[in-house]
Amino acid sequence: MASAAPRYARGMLEELRAAVGEALVTDAAALEAARGDKSGQRSAAAPLAIVEAREIGHVQAALRWASAHGVPVVPRGAGTGLAGGALAGAGELVLSTSRLDRILEISAADELAVVEAGVINAELNTALAEHGLWYTPDPASRAISTIGGNLATNAGGLMCVKYGVTRESVLGMKVVLADGRLLELGHRTVKGVTGYDLTALMIGSEGTLGVIVEATVRVRPVERGAVVTVSAAFPDVDAAARAAAAITASGVRPAALELLDTGALDAIGAYLGVGLGGGARLLVQTDGGHADAEAARVLAVVEASGGTAELGDAEEGERLFAIRRAFHPAMERQGSVLIEDVAVPRSALPAMFAAIARIEGRYGIRIPTVAHAGDGNLHPNFVYRPVLRDGREEVPEHIWDAAHELFQECLRLGGTLTGEHGVGLLKRRWLRDELGDDGYGLQRQLKAVFDPQGILNPGKVFS
Amino acid sequence: MASAAPRYARGMLEELRAAVGEALVTDAAALEAARGDKSGQRSAAAPLAIVEAREIGHVQAALRWASAHGVPVVPRGAGTGLAGGALAGAGELVLSTSRLDRILEISAADELAVVEAGVINAELNTALAEHGLWYTPDPASRAISTIGGNLATNAGGLMCVKYGVTRESVLGMKVVLADGRLLELGHRTVKGVTGYDLTALMIGSEGTLGVIVEATVRVRPVERGAVVTVSAAFPDVDAAARAAAAITASGVRPAALELLDTGALDAIGAYLGVGLGGGARLLVQTDGGHADAEAARVLAVVEASGGTAELGDAEEGERLFAIRRAFHPAMERQGSVLIEDVAVPRSALPAMFAAIARIEGRYGIRIPTVAHAGDGNLHPNFVYRPVLRDGREEVPEHIWDAAHELFQECLRLGGTLTGEHGVGLLKRRWLRDELGDDGYGLQRQLKAVFDPQGILNPGKVFS
Repeated sequence: MASAAPRYARGMLEELRAAVGEALVTDAAALEAARGDKSGQRSAAAPLAIVEAREIGHVQAALRWASAHGVPVVPRGAGTGLAGGALAGAGELVLSTSRLDRILEISAADELAVVEAGVINAELNTALAEHGLWYTPDPASRAISTIGGNLATNAGGLMCVKYGVTRESVLGMKVVLADGRLLELGHRTVKGVTGYDLTALMIGSEGTLGVIVEATVRVRPVERGAVVTVSAAFPDVDAAARAAAAITASGVRPAALELLDTGALDAIGAYLGVGLGGGARLLVQTDGGHADAEAARVLAVVEASGGTAELGDAEEGERLFAIRRAFHPAMERQGSVLIEDVAVPRSALPAMFAAIARIEGRYGIRIPTVAHAGDGNLHPNFVYRPVLRDGREEVPEHIWDAAHELFQECLRLGGTLTGEHGVGLLKRRWLRDELGDDGYGLQRQLKAVFDPQGILNPGKVFS
Repeated sequence: MASAAPRYARGMLEELRAAVGEALVTDAAALEAARGDKSGQRSAAAPLAIVEAREIGHVQAALRWASAHGVPVVPRGAGTGLAGGALAGAGELVLSTSRLDRILEISAADELAVVEAGVINAELNTALAEHGLWYTPDPASRAISTIGGNLATNAGGLMCVKYGVTRESVLGMKVVLADGRLLELGHRTVKGVTGYDLTALMIGSEGTLGVIVEATVRVRPVERGAVVTVSAAFPDVDAAARAAAAITASGVRPAALELLDTGALDAIGAYLGVGLGGGARLLVQTDGGHADAEAARVLAVVEASGGTAELGDAEEGERLFAIRRAFHPAMERQGSVLIEDVAVPRSALPAMFAAIARIEGRYGIRIPTVAHAGDGNLHPNFVYRPVLRDGREEVPEHIWDAAHELFQECLRLGGTLTGEHGVGLLKRRWLRDELGDDGYGLQRQLKAVFDPQGILNPGKVFS
């Protein structure tokens, strides 16, 4: 065993190996990879070991072992999180559900699918398409992220403005508790009020209450009818933000309503090697029986808001949305980026963009921003030059100061610290600002009910 | 003070009166009314007193008082619940939120409304209509039930098959904890994943975790486009149930899909003085841009399933749905009725109706049944002759035995004990059957976090 584990832990690990066999992984490269996720952050040292569960029994055995020895456990899906929720460090066991990747059932009659936690979002949709069905939650990471991870963070996406976030698509789940007990939550029915809604409590709990191993999700017929895309250019982000708020207020129900500011357009243009023209843009998609009429109303709002717009069909829409989806890779080219994720009431979008501009000026930094404008959910990307500390690249303090100002402004506008990425490591120090002391205390007590030893993802969500 | 309170409690009540003033009600008629709700059940004796809160401070003061003296508190909205969740008995304080009836805000721009808990569902919609907006949850009780009660039970309705149950329409709330602290949960944004979803945990908790005093709810533009109604007659309930399952499986997304069996049609026909023709019926409503095309597909499925159908416009639809809505008053004419509320996966509807027929035969009883068939949610109504016990009319044991068989069959089919009415008093003895020992134990522990003394609605949900 070429283990990175400290000597004292070897006997313990042999006990774990006896319980889970080949599912125990201790090779240095795998452990090294588990230090990070898509947040760009890394833990200070590699974790103890990884259990790559192939069956629910492995998850149970690993948690029984961890409970017995008081070993902290970091649940992990595909590691695509943006808040550092899956970072694992010294002395921690990584419990990966990514190999639990079977689609167990697809039922057109009951409009549901039963999947193991490690199934990739896009792969579920590929399988569903053969049945004319569709799982609607579409995080930007859908090609690489797992259903289990999507549930653990209550993932959003581009189309949840019309079709709802992950929580709205989950009927039930199987979850392994900290002590290894397997619990079934929720049901196969679309309605049900028997007892407290622990399914909803578990969704978005970021691996701190239990390890999700299976999900029963709602699916729907794939047919969306006509799909019409409106691409609208504005002289500046304020005009675009006002137009976005006006589109929502007009009663149109777009399937997607995305905003890109000047910084975002510049970065994407450089990345794709095309000119995107400065100013700001809205990308709006309408679908269903009213798609044409709704697109016409969007056009009218855009023009009344000082923008110019053109219509496109589904194919043209794909091309336009590819521009939006190029934002993350484009930002990776810009250097180090802190990806933020605040949400405000939709009417407060213009005020939030104004605050971002003020913060850019005050700190002399760039914050290219895209927004799921139909949800009031902004992703300001703080571009920075990392500082070295203990051999690791870290976010410099003035960037955190700028982010702090952003969060306070967001809360002042009636917003929330995270719309869809989660708290993880990166936002835990602001959690109490939003929840208040009583709410924070209550949440910690709930955590203690599920995980009395505090072994599940310690240091995440709560400080 | 013409109080029904026992002598020992008088001093305590004076203390409460000092805290809440005129909000304290102790007149015998009001106390007597608080013994019951729409379940038809009554508590063994009248409660101690009622606090009819006019402001949130009254709720806080009442709960501080109750905590200090260890007095059990029964939260109450309009008392329209069907599971006995609001029944109050000897030594209990009723905490009514029905006078907290102000609509605090309607925002078209943010598609939300902020209301106090006592606002009547239909009155909110009347106010919203002036802004072209609509709050979609539509429990049958909508004309008389409060938003707070709707949240406390996660109320469903006819149109949640398309527009979602109450939980899907709630963004946040204010809730008073057992010790009198006021807590704000959720947010004004449509997305948000900061900490655990306590809003969802509170919805459907039936007054056992806290007292909901204010809600921030989602609203949407009222326009539904065309509304088309299909009324379909079938020779028997099995054919109707199969057709309902086939309509769902066909990918049509009806705004309502209701089933009435022979017993239900007979009772409604007698009540309205019209002939409804025996057999079984489906009432289907489609709306939106695809309404006509979807109605045509419904027609085709009905005919392929051995039914005959006719189309109607919105007005004709109102007439047809008035027949459906006459079910509850019609059943009240039948004598005493135990209204049940099971839900099964939609494909199991025919099997569930077959089970109901078997149970009717075995026990020699009548169980007229309507179903929100698009959700697989059935309301079997057990007609019985009450037995007298301690001067109260009670459900005879053989009816409970029949209900027990129904519940077991429902669980066997992958269903749930209650789709939208809640557990309350009437189903608590079966709760553990569905949740399992571990789930049941966990739920009790969660209850203890919110309500360590166990003063909130004791004896409801949990035995």
